[in-house]
Amino acid sequence: MAEKIFRVNMGDLSVKIEDVPTAWQGLGGRALTSTIVAAEVEPTCHPLGGNNKLVFAPGLLSGTRAANSGRLSAGAKSPLTGTIKESNAGGTAAQLMSRMEIKALIIEGKPAENRFYALKVTAAGATIVPEDDTIGCGNFAVVDKLGLADNKECGLLSIGQAGERCQLAANISVKDPEGKFRSLGRGGLGAVMGSKGLKYITLDAAGTPKSVPLVDAEKFKEAAKTFAKALLDHPICGEGLGAYGTNVLVNIVDAVGGLPTRNFRSGHFAEHEMISGEKMAEMITERGGKNKHGCHAGCVMQCSQVFVDKAGEYVTSGFEYETIWAMGAHCCISDLDILAQADNIMDDIGVDSIEMSVTVGLAMEAGIIEFGDGPGLLKLLNEVKEGSPLGRILGSGAAVTGKVYGLTRVPVVKDQAIPAYDPRSVKGIGVTYCTSTQGADHTAGYTVATNILKCGGFVDPLQKDGQVELSRNLQIATAAVDSTGLCIFVAFAVLDDPVALPAIVDMLNARYGISLTTDDVTALGSSVLKTERAFNQAAGFTSAHDRLPEFFVTEPVPPHNAVWDFSNEEIDEFWNF
Amino acid sequence: MAEKIFRVNMGDLSVKIEDVPTAWQGLGGRALTSTIVAAEVEPTCHPLGGNNKLVFAPGLLSGTRAANSGRLSAGAKSPLTGTIKESNAGGTAAQLMSRMEIKALIIEGKPAENRFYALKVTAAGATIVPEDDTIGCGNFAVVDKLGLADNKECGLLSIGQAGERCQLAANISVKDPEGKFRSLGRGGLGAVMGSKGLKYITLDAAGTPKSVPLVDAEKFKEAAKTFAKALLDHPICGEGLGAYGTNVLVNIVDAVGGLPTRNFRSGHFAEHEMISGEKMAEMITERGGKNKHGCHAGCVMQCSQVFVDKAGEYVTSGFEYETIWAMGAHCCISDLDILAQADNIMDDIGVDSIEMSVTVGLAMEAGIIEFGDGPGLLKLLNEVKEGSPLGRILGSGAAVTGKVYGLTRVPVVKDQAIPAYDPRSVKGIGVTYCTSTQGADHTAGYTVATNILKCGGFVDPLQKDGQVELSRNLQIATAAVDSTGLCIFVAFAVLDDPVALPAIVDMLNARYGISLTTDDVTALGSSVLKTERAFNQAAGFTSAHDRLPEFFVTEPVPPHNAVWDFSNEEIDEFWNF
Repeated sequence: MAEKIFRVNMGDLSVKIEDVPTAWQGLGGRALTSTIVAAEVEPTCHPLGGNNKLVFAPGLLSGTRAANSGRLSAGAKSPLTGTIKESNAGGTAAQLMSRMEIKALIIEGKPAENRFYALKVTAAGATIVPEDDTIGCGNFAVVDKLGLADNKECGLLSIGQAGERCQLAANISVKDPEGKFRSLGRGGLGAVMGSKGLKYITLDAAGTPKSVPLVDAEKFKEAAKTFAKALLDHPICGEGLGAYGTNVLVNIVDAVGGLPTRNFRSGHFAEHEMISGEKMAEMITERGGKNKHGCHAGCVMQCSQVFVDKAGEYVTSGFEYETIWAMGAHCCISDLDILAQADNIMDDIGVDSIEMSVTVGLAMEAGIIEFGDGPGLLKLLNEVKEGSPLGRILGSGAAVTGKVYGLTRVPVVKDQAIPAYDPRSVKGIGVTYCTSTQGADHTAGYTVATNILKCGGFVDPLQKDGQVELSRNLQIATAAVDSTGLCIFVAFAVLDDPVALPAIVDMLNARYGISLTTDDVTALGSSVLKTERAFNQAAGFTSAHDRLPEFFVTEPVPPHNAVWDFSNEEIDEFWNF
Repeated sequence: MAEKIFRVNMGDLSVKIEDVPTAWQGLGGRALTSTIVAAEVEPTCHPLGGNNKLVFAPGLLSGTRAANSGRLSAGAKSPLTGTIKESNAGGTAAQLMSRMEIKALIIEGKPAENRFYALKVTAAGATIVPEDDTIGCGNFAVVDKLGLADNKECGLLSIGQAGERCQLAANISVKDPEGKFRSLGRGGLGAVMGSKGLKYITLDAAGTPKSVPLVDAEKFKEAAKTFAKALLDHPICGEGLGAYGTNVLVNIVDAVGGLPTRNFRSGHFAEHEMISGEKMAEMITERGGKNKHGCHAGCVMQCSQVFVDKAGEYVTSGFEYETIWAMGAHCCISDLDILAQADNIMDDIGVDSIEMSVTVGLAMEAGIIEFGDGPGLLKLLNEVKEGSPLGRILGSGAAVTGKVYGLTRVPVVKDQAIPAYDPRSVKGIGVTYCTSTQGADHTAGYTVATNILKCGGFVDPLQKDGQVELSRNLQIATAAVDSTGLCIFVAFAVLDDPVALPAIVDMLNARYGISLTTDDVTALGSSVLKTERAFNQAAGFTSAHDRLPEFFVTEPVPPHNAVWDFSNEEIDEFWNF
């Protein structure tokens, strides 16, 4: 049996199973979703209309025993940004899809009738069935009602109330091995799923082989071992992320003055220690939660955790630095228990925790609640859950909320909220925010690695020199990594350990019986970026959109009093490759 | 005394009076506002930030006795569209500014303190004073509190609650000769004024000469007489508009299947006669209102009217076809009394009646109220007045409301609401909506004149042939007319009567002692469009934005079952001049 494309038409409620076109055979993850979206979606279409398509694709290494290879990509034209979008997440879906030999799942069209459906996928095919029971439910209730919490052979992609309402901050939730959720977070892809009338998708791999076929199993095993060792030997991948999760960054980023505080008024949050990874680990240990935890089988870094309340009851997992920053320093709330409850609510209603929390900071900027008001944060999230007019505004994300309240200090690029690193004091990441094909996105080219963590050398975060080149190299590398199904955190090892990248290439060659070189991987990354850029240009984006909001240029940010001082020409150099 | 530029800096609360640069001396109205905005405003700036500028300029003939020459232009970068914007209106301001020899009033910067001010302008200078008394008031209360209703020597530009809140649908109100209001309606310029902390501007011309100087008074008088006669002799300018107002169009546009009904689901509104100009004139006559009325001194067309209630009390004036269409056929409300009350509320809170009413139709599309719910319309407008979350959404206009409610049938171009002519069945106006530098704007190139009213010949509204050329010619002519201070309705006479355009040129020459030809007028119009287009391109607009929403392409509109069938290439031909 060969890999197939599953094509689901929500317009006529039909399913087709197609052979994989030759041109797509060497692609996976982001390379495949972006290629399909660019090939099949009219760039000027309405992102919530019948002409947009939602594409899910596991990475090239998904379903193998390669460490940290369980990421799923989703792609579409984004209703938040208007650009092409790829969002990826852990959870069990990618590995299950690969086991079922589903190269990509394409959802197209839009139901004539205004109702919701469920899509049930097995290796043999897929069926679309009208759905009522879970409509109006949050993600936790969906998994409960379907009885899928403990079913490791059946994956789940679902949307909460935000996605049902086609809210621009809506994400798609991916069930993880414990029956909790990982998020295809950014860009409002949950709204695209909602617009197609799909409440959830089950991916039932029961009866399929536990692992995907390998052309050269021995060679694969050896390369996989080398790769896993490279990860475990690296101080960040092997130690730091496991000890404190991604939230290890709060103290580190605050120390360099890059932790955006009170809607980007400072790079230092006086109460940063209260929300730090160290504090979180201490609380988890005391309460009997879990400090190490993987978002998918085969993860050796274990950057997730299970955060519990004082009674030891589950509150949230996958409690990430960016989320904690956005609700914490950005909104000036320093109570981790409240932030964890808020994270739980956001997982349940299905909203991107970065977009949503940055937006709550704008509600504070508009005076709807005060900065630092933790209970107010929970109240606002409940408005989003209920779909009240205020909740509708906030669920539409930062750019819309800024327009509705006439704000000028609105931290977005291409209408997507800027994440957890101030671009004035961490200039490389500012270049990534500006130039990424995805709108402001730290994961698109994580220069923080080199600007702050000193992986792959050091480029001074406060100086302009070298930042454009750094961002470009990392964006190209990231586009390639996002196509393999590997977690982006493998990049730390790839930057520092010369055996890591060749091991990835060896795994790809052994999996498919091909003979890629490391240059081919770079070429793939470049090609993905250019495909995405061409889509955006056809959708009406120009270099005038590759800019930070004006206030980063005019307002110096303490403690370094840095401003965003790149010329337009310097930024536009990015695309010269 | 020569004409001057008044430059008001709201950042440091200073006023400068400057000589008119040579390059600006031959410009007025739209040509001048667009030239100043293009020269002084960074195209990528935040439209509500300190770097945007709000420019007011009377037309080249304003302040003279030329018929219908009292239009005022306002320009800025639009917070609604992100494009350059010119909006023009009648009222007394243009003539008073010209009498004071103020060529342009430029408002720049933004107060450091979050409070409101008033600007008091006389021929001798201008003062900025803190304002408290009228804050939170609607426009009618502003004029009352200032005691300006009957003061014909003092003009007033003010914003209502919507402008104070920087709402994207906010307009700027211009006091008319009766102390009521005309609107600088489209593009959210009221939000720009609000962002600059300006509640109102008084223009006190007391003591200045009643008319502006003329280089050749005899020649002017003769040309003005010819021009006025051409207007009065024309069936539309001299009869139709006076008899039924612009609302004469309801029955006419419905008859050709171009009256967008139920959010653009049909071109025919079954109850069209109930909201027609004929019905309105009958009601006004019965109740003792006024069927003929001018928005400024010197108007010979008298297309305005005073609409009164059953008790004979004033409800509204300047009750236009586009407003009546938007609340009427678009929202399926056929009670003119309710529409008149709604028009009054919109004048008071200071919102563009097209943008606001199209948005109410989208609230119906979203199910917030039902189509046809007149009391619901008034309730929603009161939400806008109060600034509730729902009111904030609706006050942000159609594009934002569409995003907040996840709608796909959102009739906007460049985020500005499409007005009262279905582009599928009146194809020339669709070309104007697509290509105008201003976003969807019927006044930018009113092909309805030729497509339906058969002025200047006839181009079949249902066929593509000739529409691009028609729209181009009219957009060029309109940009020139908008620079003279003449009402756009003079175009009907210009299209049909060969003496009208030469008479305009003669008046300009006699006013300034110059020797323009009719070709120069066309060249001016072309040049204005190109200046505006260059600004938009630098702001990030491309031909991908010169498009109608997708649903016009995919949904045939009854009764002709016409679709929007221009190719991108055909539309892009527009800019080949």
